[in-house]
Amino acid sequence: MALTLHNFFRSSTSTRLRAALNLKGLEYDYVPYVLRKGETRTPDYLKRNPQGLVPSLEREDGKVLTQSLAIIEWLEETHPEPALLPKDADGRARVRALAHMIALEVHPLNNLRVLGYLAEHFGADDAAQKAWFTHWVTTTFDALETTLARDAETGQFCHGDTPGLADLCLYAQVWNNKRFEIDIATWPVIAGIFERLDALPAFRDAAPPNQPDAA
Amino acid sequence: MALTLHNFFRSSTSTRLRAALNLKGLEYDYVPYVLRKGETRTPDYLKRNPQGLVPSLEREDGKVLTQSLAIIEWLEETHPEPALLPKDADGRARVRALAHMIALEVHPLNNLRVLGYLAEHFGADDAAQKAWFTHWVTTTFDALETTLARDAETGQFCHGDTPGLADLCLYAQVWNNKRFEIDIATWPVIAGIFERLDALPAFRDAAPPNQPDAA
Repeated sequence: MALTLHNFFRSSTSTRLRAALNLKGLEYDYVPYVLRKGETRTPDYLKRNPQGLVPSLEREDGKVLTQSLAIIEWLEETHPEPALLPKDADGRARVRALAHMIALEVHPLNNLRVLGYLAEHFGADDAAQKAWFTHWVTTTFDALETTLARDAETGQFCHGDTPGLADLCLYAQVWNNKRFEIDIATWPVIAGIFERLDALPAFRDAAPPNQPDAA
Repeated sequence: MALTLHNFFRSSTSTRLRAALNLKGLEYDYVPYVLRKGETRTPDYLKRNPQGLVPSLEREDGKVLTQSLAIIEWLEETHPEPALLPKDADGRARVRALAHMIALEVHPLNNLRVLGYLAEHFGADDAAQKAWFTHWVTTTFDALETTLARDAETGQFCHGDTPGLADLCLYAQVWNNKRFEIDIATWPVIAGIFERLDALPAFRDAAPPNQPDAA
């Protein structure tokens, strides 16, 4: 199955999907887009993805899948091994909840387009944007740290000793945090998980600086 | 299975979960929280849900499930009928992507806590908050309308003629939009789906004005 990944090196939704594809052992053609130049707003790209967002995953049959978490669930259903979700329903609920804490409560607020709106309409300068970004990371990472430290299910990674869906989101978000110099040491459990993930080729190869379009 | 739903009538993540429970035919005890009064920030509630967010679904065994979409996926796995996702992987990917367009690109930006930050740190008055809210709804609803109008899979509801995961998110978001008087007629396909959903008791009974804590 030939796959084409429409994405951007620094996009954290792209990072989490790249790591998922790597974990599943799936190869893909890498097509980069420069968000600031509006390259995802062209008529051609909007036909693939009416939201004009990355990532999109295009299949050989022309079908284009959108929304990173929906794509990862599709990968999990069509390529079950290695599994990104545990087998038991309670475990799956826990892993999805951890993933969604990051994917729904942090990342959507800290997108490039959101920071752009703050600058344009509220005159948010770099310091104000950093304060905003840091506030939403901190709010959720504090709760995530509490949860990971509390739960017996936490292992070397977010859920046991195998990397999965929640780790994909955590890894990508910690990379995103680096842009605003957020100190990961504030959250030792998260920091430990990140360090172990970063030692795995599937994750390391998905990291922003290791992409062909990295500056 | 006795279930307790910790929620708030106006919360759109609560609305989508209430409708899911209703569709599955599951009864629950309704425990309301007033967000503005900080009732989800008490030590007791934070033990259940370290994020201090609604909804949380508490089971008879004391286990507390969090994050509305993760809870709905758990309901789907443990109570498969009636199904909220299609059987085929492509259909599931489409429904999840539609749901995530709303749940990840609209709702997280338009939370009470986000509007509160804008007011506190950027002096956003009612008009500025409305402009912000409307901007993010419009950005995604335009793309959602395009997608629903384009795809052959769209039926009476987002995917065929059976209500599912995407409809839960759409229904709750349109209710949320009403608070800022956003005219749904701008998006005729979405408006039609909302109207048909609103005629179903499972959805209507989940709507904000029909909850015990509605003002």
